[in-house]
Amino acid sequence: MRPSGRTPEQLRPITITRQYTCHAEGSVLVEFGRTKVLCTATVTEGVPRFLKGKGQGWVTAEYGMLPRSTHSRMHREAASGKQGGRTLEIQRLIARSLRAAVDLTKLGENTITVDCDVLQADGGTRTASITGACVALADALNWMQEKGTLKTNPMNFMVAAVSVGIYEGIPVCDLDYDEDSSAETDMNLVMTETGKMIEIQGTAEGEPFSQEELMQLLELGKQGIQQIIQHQRQALV
Amino acid sequence: MRPSGRTPEQLRPITITRQYTCHAEGSVLVEFGRTKVLCTATVTEGVPRFLKGKGQGWVTAEYGMLPRSTHSRMHREAASGKQGGRTLEIQRLIARSLRAAVDLTKLGENTITVDCDVLQADGGTRTASITGACVALADALNWMQEKGTLKTNPMNFMVAAVSVGIYEGIPVCDLDYDEDSSAETDMNLVMTETGKMIEIQGTAEGEPFSQEELMQLLELGKQGIQQIIQHQRQALV
Amino acid sequence: MRPSGRTPEQLRPITITRQYTCHAEGSVLVEFGRTKVLCTATVTEGVPRFLKGKGQGWVTAEYGMLPRSTHSRMHREAASGKQGGRTLEIQRLIARSLRAAVDLTKLGENTITVDCDVLQADGGTRTASITGACVALADALNWMQEKGTLKTNPMNFMVAAVSVGIYEGIPVCDLDYDEDSSAETDMNLVMTETGKMIEIQGTAEGEPFSQEELMQLLELGKQGIQQIIQHQRQALV
Amino acid sequence: MRPSGRTPEQLRPITITRQYTCHAEGSVLVEFGRTKVLCTATVTEGVPRFLKGKGQGWVTAEYGMLPRSTHSRMHREAASGKQGGRTLEIQRLIARSLRAAVDLTKLGENTITVDCDVLQADGGTRTASITGACVALADALNWMQEKGTLKTNPMNFMVAAVSVGIYEGIPVCDLDYDEDSSAETDMNLVMTETGKMIEIQGTAEGEPFSQEELMQLLELGKQGIQQIIQHQRQALV
Amino acid sequence: MRPSGRTPEQLRPITITRQYTCHAEGSVLVEFGRTKVLCTATVTEGVPRFLKGKGQGWVTAEYGMLPRSTHSRMHREAASGKQGGRTLEIQRLIARSLRAAVDLTKLGENTITVDCDVLQADGGTRTASITGACVALADALNWMQEKGTLKTNPMNFMVAAVSVGIYEGIPVCDLDYDEDSSAETDMNLVMTETGKMIEIQGTAEGEPFSQEELMQLLELGKQGIQQIIQHQRQALV
Amino acid sequence: MRPSGRTPEQLRPITITRQYTCHAEGSVLVEFGRTKVLCTATVTEGVPRFLKGKGQGWVTAEYGMLPRSTHSRMHREAASGKQGGRTLEIQRLIARSLRAAVDLTKLGENTITVDCDVLQADGGTRTASITGACVALADALNWMQEKGTLKTNPMNFMVAAVSVGIYEGIPVCDLDYDEDSSAETDMNLVMTETGKMIEIQGTAEGEPFSQEELMQLLELGKQGIQQIIQHQRQALV
Repeated sequence: MRPSGRTPEQLRPITITRQYTCHAEGSVLVEFGRTKVLCTATVTEGVPRFLKGKGQGWVTAEYGMLPRSTHSRMHREAASGKQGGRTLEIQRLIARSLRAAVDLTKLGENTITVDCDVLQADGGTRTASITGACVALADALNWMQEKGTLKTNPMNFMVAAVSVGIYEGIPVCDLDYDEDSSAETDMNLVMTETGKMIEIQGTAEGEPFSQEELMQLLELGKQGIQQIIQHQRQALV
Repeated sequence: MRPSGRTPEQLRPITITRQYTCHAEGSVLVEFGRTKVLCTATVTEGVPRFLKGKGQGWVTAEYGMLPRSTHSRMHREAASGKQGGRTLEIQRLIARSLRAAVDLTKLGENTITVDCDVLQADGGTRTASITGACVALADALNWMQEKGTLKTNPMNFMVAAVSVGIYEGIPVCDLDYDEDSSAETDMNLVMTETGKMIEIQGTAEGEPFSQEELMQLLELGKQGIQQIIQHQRQALV
Repeated sequence: MRPSGRTPEQLRPITITRQYTCHAEGSVLVEFGRTKVLCTATVTEGVPRFLKGKGQGWVTAEYGMLPRSTHSRMHREAASGKQGGRTLEIQRLIARSLRAAVDLTKLGENTITVDCDVLQADGGTRTASITGACVALADALNWMQEKGTLKTNPMNFMVAAVSVGIYEGIPVCDLDYDEDSSAETDMNLVMTETGKMIEIQGTAEGEPFSQEELMQLLELGKQGIQQIIQHQRQALV
Repeated sequence: MRPSGRTPEQLRPITITRQYTCHAEGSVLVEFGRTKVLCTATVTEGVPRFLKGKGQGWVTAEYGMLPRSTHSRMHREAASGKQGGRTLEIQRLIARSLRAAVDLTKLGENTITVDCDVLQADGGTRTASITGACVALADALNWMQEKGTLKTNPMNFMVAAVSVGIYEGIPVCDLDYDEDSSAETDMNLVMTETGKMIEIQGTAEGEPFSQEELMQLLELGKQGIQQIIQHQRQALV
Repeated sequence: MRPSGRTPEQLRPITITRQYTCHAEGSVLVEFGRTKVLCTATVTEGVPRFLKGKGQGWVTAEYGMLPRSTHSRMHREAASGKQGGRTLEIQRLIARSLRAAVDLTKLGENTITVDCDVLQADGGTRTASITGACVALADALNWMQEKGTLKTNPMNFMVAAVSVGIYEGIPVCDLDYDEDSSAETDMNLVMTETGKMIEIQGTAEGEPFSQEELMQLLELGKQGIQQIIQHQRQALV
Repeated sequence: MRPSGRTPEQLRPITITRQYTCHAEGSVLVEFGRTKVLCTATVTEGVPRFLKGKGQGWVTAEYGMLPRSTHSRMHREAASGKQGGRTLEIQRLIARSLRAAVDLTKLGENTITVDCDVLQADGGTRTASITGACVALADALNWMQEKGTLKTNPMNFMVAAVSVGIYEGIPVCDLDYDEDSSAETDMNLVMTETGKMIEIQGTAEGEPFSQEELMQLLELGKQGIQQIIQHQRQALV
């Protein structure tokens, strides 16, 4: 039995709210149960130095947690003077996932920066971030088309993410904090709406896992992501 | 005429939402018009080193802006490796204002840290922060009393803050971004519910101001703060 | 009775020594009693990036304390790797005050940087800094005129500053360290030689203060600044 | 055809040299073809603060590249003042992999730090690092047993790692730099000598990949790791 | 002919002013011609961690230049977030020189920190710093004896320093900035009042130098230091 | 008797291995007994800003120690966020020594960066670094000539370095760690193959030293460097 009473394949309630704040070209509040992340997409002209003159765009991401988004207060990274390894790892993952969704050559020499800031954390902040960031990115690309900056939409497909893991011996989908903190294996999957994989990151926190368990987790993740992509589509209608 | 159509003494709509997030001992979303700040109060045992063994508590504050809370994206302070001068100045102001509201000797050897994170900025983020932080602090102190950590409530009085300034020659109250960015004089006032002053910080951005103008600004600020304190009281009922 | 035996409105002995060091375009040692600050003004061609091509100049300031300018040794900010919040706050205040004294459009695309380094501290280092910095700035502007870089003098008026506060219930002017460290209210005033205000920063360290007390402090500060401006004028003869 | 002329499943020549330097409790030079990593294991008494008094040990890792281990010179991270995101991500991966190999409760309150420093890079530095680090760790644990610090050997099983990827449409094992820099999909696998998985990290650099491709990569990786573990065993005889 | 008209062996006018500032246990302004350095010695109880419980004391030093102590303004090290290599090198040299002058076992578990801050620079700031720092250290040790903290004086002998160099082919003593910036060889000597050497640091800036030239520089330096030690003795009377 | 059984003037076995790694334009492993340093020289087009347009090149150096190159593990400078004073001092020394060996005007607007990374430390890492770096530099200059970037060889002469010191009262050459850590006087000499001096850095760690002792050390160092230069020459054949 999962602490939340969910069945193994059951996701938490998911809500995706667009135009959550007023300044950004895309602004999305994504909620996976009690996990809440604000994702804003900013469009700026120009590209980083290593891309100058190559006729393509760039998509990048930054991630942060508000100090008291968690059970006990975390230090503020701005105050301690650097982003921790976990933060850097997550924002690199978000950025790679978003770039996979976009044809950068159709973006022109423009950069889109997606900020994912966790307002409240209850497990799965990175998968919620990717899911919300993709909607914010879609909004920013639409904004560019409406403004006439882009002629065609550079988005290849929507991407979404979910966590899966082995909790008390049973593969489960979309772990909350209670499950996540005691799971034996923890895996994050990023997939496209076409059912293909962009990222798979699995870690044995306790016992190593077998290939059979890996297959079960993949199966759970695949069906979870399909549902999440439905939520994205409904939000974008 | 003010850009928003308000009269000189008119505040923006103010809302104060308690228990906005679930983990913190006090969690308040404060809105002054389009300015939205999330204020969370965290209680921890112990005090900073310079207070150890003195039998009193401590109240401190940290402030940050989400990168795209503003018109154009600001860099993320965690990524650039330090908090800017404006950030440090504001969080020192918030902390001093809150400490003035509390009898630290009644707090025991406990520390309350109030984080003010700006989700959306439209002028007056520091005055909104102080206003919301005081409600979050009140909630945290109530939590301590309910838990039995405190026998008496250490709060002396509520404090609230408002900005006043001279915009196109006319003293106005609670400036939004359009006014703030072109005001000749900009002043922030922090006052108690008993009508006394805790902080006054006024700056001539353009022309120096006369003592008469200062008096007008004080008068406007005083009546604005009285209304804001009404909002705090209603929120705490 | 004040610890120093001064009357409430009495300033400490003030001396302003120009050309204190040999390299800077303006170099002033300012002394308010035992508080000694070396203020040097440096002229450089060009302006910060945000002003390029706007046909105006810039005035900025930096502030520091020698490690043993104080009663007990402070850490060296260069060694600890960052300037503290108090330092940043003070140097922002000095810079704003100096900019208010100058017509930046008459300065051409030049930058003047004023460094205020405290050799010995006994309260009031920020007000002494502003007072001395304004003289160093005047010297640097004269140097530019003599050199032919400037045709007209961009200085609008001299500015000076003083601290006022409520010490043992009585409003006093130009607090030394003994008074400052136990004052109930502490206020810094920056005014022009024309009697107008540029900055007012007041803080209730203990009890909140009333508007009546504020008026008394303003009155004390105004007459103190008038005397300080006399010292500036005599120094510049 | 692979640039090196290898068959898809063929590893590069692997050599593992123990006691490569003289001070460390474990010191291993691992070579995967032209990739050369020096792995040293250091034993220290005590554990990090978060583990104090829990009666268990800790294993951690740090990773670095010499500035000219690569084709063009990289900046020195010590000089630029921080470790980059890639570095932090890799050293977290190495550390997790090593901890999975060890029963920390049998280690006592001791810490083993494994440093992986890349002398020469030609793709696969993280998988070579894990492979060599595990041998250095085994040596350090043997050293502790010989010295009498440990009664039983805390090592559960050897772990090794290999990269797999899709290069020009074909799944291949142990990618060198030429392959790595143009692979469509890149995956790192960490497995135990018992054939179970500890980490799987796969990324679509170009096209998303299908589950069938994932299966092929897993199969290639599994047989590659079995061979690598043979090299570890021979080195430890 | 030297730019200053001095003979090759002639020092600049040297003045040593004690009690230059009021808070430090030793406070000395040392002037070598236009080079002016403020040296303050601070006594604190306790020693750095690596010396705890060894029954001995410690002497350390820090060095800094005010931003406009030089011809053109240098950046402020506190603002740029780190001390440069030259600064660290000089403060390490000062500290080693002072420790050589003191019997640390007679100092008890106390630390003396000497801050050398350059108010005005015209060549030879490091040798002036050592010379002044030694007088400030002597004053601090006397203060400790008067206060009863020390029973015997831990000072072994006075130390002083001078620069020598080859300027336009001729060995000269106590180089000013004009000489220093174009000297072919530059050497700093630290010696005791007993005529022995503590530090010798010579660098060929242009042509390498012969052993014969080294001998000439040593001879010049030795007689220069003897004169400087006379100035120290007179100052301490 | 020296701990190693060497006679006072006897060097440790010296080996210089060229082409130790494959990417750098010059790559040398230098061994002075158990001290092993990897020196790589990197050629890049362009010069630092302060040299732009002056028609000359630049040679610089960086130095680092692997964390477990030493008896007990040192912290990793990249992780602690800055290079220590000793590191900066050594890399400045290496760079100055190399620049003395090269006619920068013949180098064109190119920069050569030599990285010296200590794989194993047993005393004398800075002198081994200079010795190996000079060979790596020679290889890089040859590479530039072969490539046609340079018409003439800018190298004036080879430079090499050795440490000398007074160990248990007796002057000895090429100190290992056991000697170095208890020597009374420690001196590093950098000389040219023509027998002239580039750097002399001597420090009295215990007793100050006399000029007679200095002469003995110089004599020992001179003959040691002559032998080391023979090793450089043989390596470059």
